[in-house]
Amino acid sequence: MTRMPQQVREALQDLMTDYCYAVDGLKDVEPLLDLFTDDAVADLSAIGLPLMDGKKAIRAFFDGVFADMTHHFHMISNFRPQSWDGEAGAMTAYVIGMGRAKDGNTVTVQVHYRMECVQQADRWRCRHYTITPMMPMPGSLEEIHGNH
Amino acid sequence: MTRMPQQVREALQDLMTDYCYAVDGLKDVEPLLDLFTDDAVADLSAIGLPLMDGKKAIRAFFDGVFADMTHHFHMISNFRPQSWDGEAGAMTAYVIGMGRAKDGNTVTVQVHYRMECVQQADRWRCRHYTITPMMPMPGSLEEIHGNH
Amino acid sequence: MTRMPQQVREALQDLMTDYCYAVDGLKDVEPLLDLFTDDAVADLSAIGLPLMDGKKAIRAFFDGVFADMTHHFHMISNFRPQSWDGEAGAMTAYVIGMGRAKDGNTVTVQVHYRMECVQQADRWRCRHYTITPMMPMPGSLEEIHGNH
Repeated sequence: MTRMPQQVREALQDLMTDYCYAVDGLKDVEPLLDLFTDDAVADLSAIGLPLMDGKKAIRAFFDGVFADMTHHFHMISNFRPQSWDGEAGAMTAYVIGMGRAKDGNTVTVQVHYRMECVQQADRWRCRHYTITPMMPMPGSLEEIHGNH
Repeated sequence: MTRMPQQVREALQDLMTDYCYAVDGLKDVEPLLDLFTDDAVADLSAIGLPLMDGKKAIRAFFDGVFADMTHHFHMISNFRPQSWDGEAGAMTAYVIGMGRAKDGNTVTVQVHYRMECVQQADRWRCRHYTITPMMPMPGSLEEIHGNH
Repeated sequence: MTRMPQQVREALQDLMTDYCYAVDGLKDVEPLLDLFTDDAVADLSAIGLPLMDGKKAIRAFFDGVFADMTHHFHMISNFRPQSWDGEAGAMTAYVIGMGRAKDGNTVTVQVHYRMECVQQADRWRCRHYTITPMMPMPGSLEEIHGNH
């Protein structure tokens, strides 16, 4: 691939890190949604969660998550540029995600994130987000975040 | 905020990483103490541990920790600049901290570090350090590091 | 030590990250082997696994690992330059390593990696690799990766 410029690489690492802080805030979903383009696709189907097409669907999903959870912890590392075409850049990373739901149920996952991102007027945003499992998923993931 | 310069950002990331190596060394407390200013405050009260005012108090706490523990592992990631005023910079990060005490008791925590740092003659040092819990703290944290 | 140049530091961080992606791929051992020099030494003896002298021995070990495992997850962080002599650079990092074997056995370790690396015609490669335990090793490490 064309080598991703260093400043793009840093911007994508910051975006993926900002995502973790935003998803762990658990109070205000707006900073999280602001990291996605309006037409973003978030494909969580590989871990048994929804494939969301557009920010409205992403909002609905995270509104539910934020309502259900008391604690979140998403540690991200292993950043690696995957593609760069001069406009869009894709980066992957590893995440250990942990959560505790209001009913006391807990979940820990080891997953792989891929975010394809573009620069908009004020900041970089993710237009395609995929989560892939790396270790077997625990049953509590579906119990906590599934359609229940 | 004023954007933190890249070299400050890297210095703070290195300082926070050095802290993890120093706290995991468990033999010599001096490299750990050298990362703090003489008047540093270390506020661990949010995880049920002491609020320490000044390097003497920090030394006493870590003397005890180093005497009690056989193993330490503090993995740090999710670095994010939080403030920069031209002299002092604050950075946050996520940490998975693990330890095993001499009595065989073990502890794992998922926490958020914040270090406010200033540049001194020879290196950057932390003048205010805070740990905040992200997942519920285990009972063994108090058993191992509490006033016992 | 002589300060490691920033571009060397970034190359070694990328090499260590590439190692994690390669060891977690579990399908093709070639991208993993390509990260080592022909005469590389991989010393895993401190965690009860082999000391391997040369790429042939490293290949044999990882052929076995890839045959045995269904899942791998190696999260790396706490990168720190350790030495730089103008040609060879050593970097350390922390790793949480997880695996699931075909028989369902699982293993999690918290370890310290050290890679001593040199630049060859096309890329940086590791010529000496050491793993050191940070937390007590689980019995399943020997069950899964030992001589059985």
